[in-house]
Amino acid sequence: MTQSIDTMLARLLGPRGFTTDADTVTPWLTDWRGRYHGAARAMLSPADTSELAETVRLCAAHQIALVPQGGNTGMAAGATPDSKGDAMLLSLRRLDTIDTSRIADGFVECGAGVILERLHTVLADQGARFPLSLGAKGSATIGGLVATNAGGTQVLRHGNMRALVAGIEAVMADGTVLDERAPLKKDNRGYALRDLIVGSEGTLAIVSRVVLRTSPAIIDRATAWVGVASADAAYRLLRALDGQREQLEQFEIIPDLALESVLGHVAGTRAPLAGRHAWHVIVELVRERPDQREPREQLENALAKSIEAGLVENAAIASSGREEAEFWRIRESISETERAHGPALQHDVSVPVADMPRFIAETSARVEDQFPGTTALAFGHLGDGNVHFHVRAPEDAVAERWHDECGEAISDMVYDMVDSFAGSISAEHGIGRAKLRDLSRHASPARLASLTAIKRALDPHNILNPGALIPAEGSNT
Amino acid sequence: MTQSIDTMLARLLGPRGFTTDADTVTPWLTDWRGRYHGAARAMLSPADTSELAETVRLCAAHQIALVPQGGNTGMAAGATPDSKGDAMLLSLRRLDTIDTSRIADGFVECGAGVILERLHTVLADQGARFPLSLGAKGSATIGGLVATNAGGTQVLRHGNMRALVAGIEAVMADGTVLDERAPLKKDNRGYALRDLIVGSEGTLAIVSRVVLRTSPAIIDRATAWVGVASADAAYRLLRALDGQREQLEQFEIIPDLALESVLGHVAGTRAPLAGRHAWHVIVELVRERPDQREPREQLENALAKSIEAGLVENAAIASSGREEAEFWRIRESISETERAHGPALQHDVSVPVADMPRFIAETSARVEDQFPGTTALAFGHLGDGNVHFHVRAPEDAVAERWHDECGEAISDMVYDMVDSFAGSISAEHGIGRAKLRDLSRHASPARLASLTAIKRALDPHNILNPGALIPAEGSNT
Repeated sequence: MTQSIDTMLARLLGPRGFTTDADTVTPWLTDWRGRYHGAARAMLSPADTSELAETVRLCAAHQIALVPQGGNTGMAAGATPDSKGDAMLLSLRRLDTIDTSRIADGFVECGAGVILERLHTVLADQGARFPLSLGAKGSATIGGLVATNAGGTQVLRHGNMRALVAGIEAVMADGTVLDERAPLKKDNRGYALRDLIVGSEGTLAIVSRVVLRTSPAIIDRATAWVGVASADAAYRLLRALDGQREQLEQFEIIPDLALESVLGHVAGTRAPLAGRHAWHVIVELVRERPDQREPREQLENALAKSIEAGLVENAAIASSGREEAEFWRIRESISETERAHGPALQHDVSVPVADMPRFIAETSARVEDQFPGTTALAFGHLGDGNVHFHVRAPEDAVAERWHDECGEAISDMVYDMVDSFAGSISAEHGIGRAKLRDLSRHASPARLASLTAIKRALDPHNILNPGALIPAEGSNT
Repeated sequence: MTQSIDTMLARLLGPRGFTTDADTVTPWLTDWRGRYHGAARAMLSPADTSELAETVRLCAAHQIALVPQGGNTGMAAGATPDSKGDAMLLSLRRLDTIDTSRIADGFVECGAGVILERLHTVLADQGARFPLSLGAKGSATIGGLVATNAGGTQVLRHGNMRALVAGIEAVMADGTVLDERAPLKKDNRGYALRDLIVGSEGTLAIVSRVVLRTSPAIIDRATAWVGVASADAAYRLLRALDGQREQLEQFEIIPDLALESVLGHVAGTRAPLAGRHAWHVIVELVRERPDQREPREQLENALAKSIEAGLVENAAIASSGREEAEFWRIRESISETERAHGPALQHDVSVPVADMPRFIAETSARVEDQFPGTTALAFGHLGDGNVHFHVRAPEDAVAERWHDECGEAISDMVYDMVDSFAGSISAEHGIGRAKLRDLSRHASPARLASLTAIKRALDPHNILNPGALIPAEGSNT
């Protein structure tokens, strides 16, 4: 039996679609952050939906686990098999077709394996764009972004991946195909299966193709670096821009400590403003249609008013594309800088937007008070109520020992604060395998029971990404 | 046992919350369209979430079915128990609190029993609005709108109910409470339970409270009645308004036949334009913020250009609120006029927006050709790819006999056309009990199997609205 399934899959998928070659497979068995190392019986790479469906059907019949994987850039080890080596690694990377025939209606159809950056390029050639981007865009696939309901800096205006998926095709756990690619604005034929599958991390179905909403290409933009006294002032600036919401593309906050660290760590960076400010904001307004207002003029007016009102201490609008890129380079270097700085704990959390300034202030104070020598640092997507909340170890800490001794206690303190704000312990990174313990501890009994029940219902033999997202009781691995 | 559950519920809920009085209960046992008549063991009306949770817990323990009900204005008999009289009718109407404390952040919290019109009034007093309305607003409750993922004429800009629910509280089938009311823009703690519960028609959980997104009150608006030569011209007019999308609040299409019928049936109505046109459009642009463009000027310019381009035959912009109301009175009288006109079949269907003109033309031609004497009539939400597709009986048809002889065949022809456009046989009305047969016939095996599996997973004893939404195999009634 175990022989025959491998043979059947090898015959079905051919040499490009079935391999056990260690040199080929091994690079895909460690997660993006290098913390999880798995093993696989083989790597399967179906060439189209029909091969994928037959693959799932065969594996279901033999109760062989499948761990789906796109670009393997996830932050929560959701695409790494366990170390037993029983599971098949299921690469979706060959499902890489792009169909732009509906582009005039604002839609593009993509295979799960399409790399985000390639989609950007293809759409740019057609005068359109897909308004979601992230650091790993050169490797991340559309299927992975869908499976993890990815976010990023443009969620503010365009929503996360779930809001951008207009239609979906997915292979269910028994190998049947759910083809709901038609982009219907209204559809009440029972439960929202599309929304359910988006963000389910390959545990309910394997996404094979999606129809995505596109936006018009950007005609021009204006980007400002803004110095403010507090995260609360940053929030009030965001609200002062309510009138510009339809053109407000990005709004990111950066504490002074993060800026200072980037300036010290990344060669060629320089402070955008002359003076010191406790907090910094990058604001971007865009124009997508000729009849929209000129972004630069709007931004100048809004910032002038905010300076007058005492909300903003100082601001600089980028005078060139180069200067814009310099602003964004600082923002995008924070994660790397923090990793280089020394041991730290990262949390990707959200609370209601209006509560975020208070959350940052109170959580930072509590952590630094209870764990002397630590430094809290929150940066990111204020407009989504989502920050990356890092806690740096004391200067003299030894990485591994500090993690072992304080890691859980500090994270639990951060997450307890999140709970007290009715927030989320995973805003955009998902659960995968890395946050299972945190989910078990911080999700409500009603949520945990519902997740487990739905998983069992749609994947009764637990063959789709076992060990990911669903805490142990619901997993048979 | 059967005695004791009634006694326990009566004690728990008190005289306002438990009644078997026929005069009180009977009016709620017939559906809105008067086609389904049910029976109930008692009517339960919990006063708050905790009474509701305990009610569900008790009924779950005794495997007593609960049929949840709001204003009983659904179009698909989703809130009418069957005629056996075993089930409890569960009224959510006493859960009628409104909390406006987050109104400055754009949110309002409502109990499931809040009547839509009351919410409109309360928000208007605060300079805000809830951008969803429908004919039954004086009776329809927020809980019912959430359970059916209601639509209406403002979905174009604001989305349907699922897009407007930012947070939810629901009682699961075992009586545990899922409290996810916090309006989080980003949350990846596993499956999208909120989106799953919205539109589940009370079959997965009982919605007790929701946090809804609000919009700013409208400062001014401009409404035009537009005559065009075809549904395709109407679609091209919609696309010509792409530049006004952020202020385009409503865009409805009306065929000439529907207009003529309304003018003949409803006293005091008059044709908005002097000449005859094959199709009519009502367009509404609004301004919510002082810095947005003046709607009237925008609409005048856009229509002038469209007349010049030969897209629009003629147009009139309402010169007063009275005239605006006259335009909308025509639109809102279509359903009533069609009911009065004679026997007809109604279908609430959607296809991808761009395909709708072709769908209307091809489906009308096919139905009228195959069923001589019938007249097809499509009107409604073109911008959502959603029309109400009516088929009038031949002049000499006898209502009941015609329904019996041709009803299923005509509806199947319409729905087969919907299938061929990859559309939905229920765009905004849901499935309830009235469309179960159609769902069984026209949903894919993967969708049907998933619906049934999810239902069994979250309501294993089938006590939540049994007989609604899930075709027979998944129901034990």
